[in-house]
Amino acid sequence: MSAVLNQDDSPMVLREDRDGVAHLTLNRPAQFNALSEAMLNALIAELDAIAADPAVRVVVLAGEGKAFCAGHDLKEMRGNHTLEFQQALFRLCGKLMCKIIAIPQPVIARVHSIATAAGCQLVSMCDLAVAAEGARFAVSGINVGLFCSTPSVGLSRNMGRKAAFEMLVTGEFIDAAEAQRRGLINRVVPLEQLDEEVAKLAASICTKSSAAISMGKQLFYQQLEMGIDAAYQTAAETMACNMMTEDAGEGIDAFIAKRKPVWKGR
Amino acid sequence: MSAVLNQDDSPMVLREDRDGVAHLTLNRPAQFNALSEAMLNALIAELDAIAADPAVRVVVLAGEGKAFCAGHDLKEMRGNHTLEFQQALFRLCGKLMCKIIAIPQPVIARVHSIATAAGCQLVSMCDLAVAAEGARFAVSGINVGLFCSTPSVGLSRNMGRKAAFEMLVTGEFIDAAEAQRRGLINRVVPLEQLDEEVAKLAASICTKSSAAISMGKQLFYQQLEMGIDAAYQTAAETMACNMMTEDAGEGIDAFIAKRKPVWKGR
Amino acid sequence: MSAVLNQDDSPMVLREDRDGVAHLTLNRPAQFNALSEAMLNALIAELDAIAADPAVRVVVLAGEGKAFCAGHDLKEMRGNHTLEFQQALFRLCGKLMCKIIAIPQPVIARVHSIATAAGCQLVSMCDLAVAAEGARFAVSGINVGLFCSTPSVGLSRNMGRKAAFEMLVTGEFIDAAEAQRRGLINRVVPLEQLDEEVAKLAASICTKSSAAISMGKQLFYQQLEMGIDAAYQTAAETMACNMMTEDAGEGIDAFIAKRKPVWKGR
Repeated sequence: MSAVLNQDDSPMVLREDRDGVAHLTLNRPAQFNALSEAMLNALIAELDAIAADPAVRVVVLAGEGKAFCAGHDLKEMRGNHTLEFQQALFRLCGKLMCKIIAIPQPVIARVHSIATAAGCQLVSMCDLAVAAEGARFAVSGINVGLFCSTPSVGLSRNMGRKAAFEMLVTGEFIDAAEAQRRGLINRVVPLEQLDEEVAKLAASICTKSSAAISMGKQLFYQQLEMGIDAAYQTAAETMACNMMTEDAGEGIDAFIAKRKPVWKGR
Repeated sequence: MSAVLNQDDSPMVLREDRDGVAHLTLNRPAQFNALSEAMLNALIAELDAIAADPAVRVVVLAGEGKAFCAGHDLKEMRGNHTLEFQQALFRLCGKLMCKIIAIPQPVIARVHSIATAAGCQLVSMCDLAVAAEGARFAVSGINVGLFCSTPSVGLSRNMGRKAAFEMLVTGEFIDAAEAQRRGLINRVVPLEQLDEEVAKLAASICTKSSAAISMGKQLFYQQLEMGIDAAYQTAAETMACNMMTEDAGEGIDAFIAKRKPVWKGR
Repeated sequence: MSAVLNQDDSPMVLREDRDGVAHLTLNRPAQFNALSEAMLNALIAELDAIAADPAVRVVVLAGEGKAFCAGHDLKEMRGNHTLEFQQALFRLCGKLMCKIIAIPQPVIARVHSIATAAGCQLVSMCDLAVAAEGARFAVSGINVGLFCSTPSVGLSRNMGRKAAFEMLVTGEFIDAAEAQRRGLINRVVPLEQLDEEVAKLAASICTKSSAAISMGKQLFYQQLEMGIDAAYQTAAETMACNMMTEDAGEGIDAFIAKRKPVWKGR
């Protein structure tokens, strides 16, 4: 994979792997990490590579510079004013969002600052999110005549419908504490503890069996869309298959013997 | 449209339009604004008229007198004790509730006091709700041997299932603060600030593109009922169509030029 | 029905009926009430008997000994390491969970202590739950290499998806106050008031029409899985049928006459 580059030849998305954690960083700080077509493609390519890489146990998604992500690239959108371009762009955006929940590894959003429009959507679609106290969230497309329809998909699956609808029609910001109360993020910490808190959460997941995590993540989103009978039938099959893995045998034997398990991985 | 009248010739539902906001007021104060068959028809007629009226940007739904709305008209129901009457009545009720989310304009419930049974359902089905601190909410049909089945539809889509179930089987009241925590209402203010708070929320929506708001509102409820892939596909089409409207072009140009946008409307 | 017995001949599930309330108690305290195959069958048999017993108005589900329920019986699972055994076990588990919401009477979980893995799932699937302040909840299967897939079905229908996902991939405990904020339980009280609080909630339901409660409970879970139009159509039919019961007529007449209703029951 050849990296997608910015005009100054820096990569549009940075990837750095440490101890089983792949750190992906949106790297268009001067454009507040706007999700241009190139940026969407770069993120999709990185997630595809990570999905195929068993050495990666967790993904952390962060933003370089002042903003986490300010949404789509309005200048690019306005400069390509055809229905075809817009359709292709938003389908690509949807493809990225669905890929986040489709890859086997949990994805943690590390939100140090503002996340607006499709940037807020990105947070909503990550499996987990940790934010700095000063982070703020809005689906502000309505301020420029563009209802945040695609962001509403993730947002309304993270918080109550009235709360989501209010954000969508007013474009107003909520702070990190409110975002946590509503379910958009898992944890809020002072900015200087953000990396430590993200690392702690990532490390907790890294100690688990990656075979179990990947089977479980896939089942989790599958069953959410089912009626309860079908959900239990599907989940029962997953549990039975999970139980037949080497890791589950080892995990239970270790638990009974009061020793630490040694995972085989996926 | 000839207005539905009370026995004293006052209209059963009052409508007053100001600055793009249609104020609908349930006007059967002596019956705590009970949703009789005539009241349901009057509300449906008003919402149909509003849906076709591009001058209306937001609807505020309020109640005259002591109660916001105490639900169905038990005397009328008991006085027409046939299965056919009951079926027709509850289908009509469902028609009203679905119309609230089907019209292009956002509907704000202005809840100054108690909202019980189908009155609580009315609040749950509005897009947004602002309540006075003294407002109280219950689905109390169970106290008269009538489980609030239709209210449960809206209620269980506003708050967690255990919280909704408890209200349904106990008939107990929750106060405004609790209703806000659970997601049934957006904002709580002292009674004397209720109109100001509703006006502020309505005004915020009035400054937005009504074309974008109406496309977005329709998409919002549509995607809520879909799996996530289908939701993104539908939302992507809406975004692309929204982007091709004059308002979105104007909005983005104004944003880039740092000036105020001038909307064309829907 | 011949009771399922422990090795010391004590029944695996205790049942005691008082004032319309059936108290079911998981009775394998030395195994932290682990849900072995025999325990699952015993619970299913008890719920089937209760479903057919009109004298029972409410069910209270409790655990004997130190834990409420610590989930599946890992030793039994490890000792029967075939895919067939695991599939049969988890289908049986799903059957029990779906039965809790299928029986006509509301089921209240009385959680005095820890509820982990399938024990936490049991709480999530009860219609209502009351916990002692010291109760703690986790879906900790991931610690032994077994993602809590079946527990995720109930858990993700009680709380937001990010909150549920975090519990599933970290295996960490939450306390009773947090469980209440998230929607997993309805009420939290000091341990010494737990029985009183459960009794109060049960008594409130016992004063209601059991015909209305059973029609309503069935409709409640049915409509949750429907789109909003279909939900209203189904709920409208239920309301109309409920309205034609003797209890609804009596309830409304009593309300109008300001006297206490006398229910006929289901």
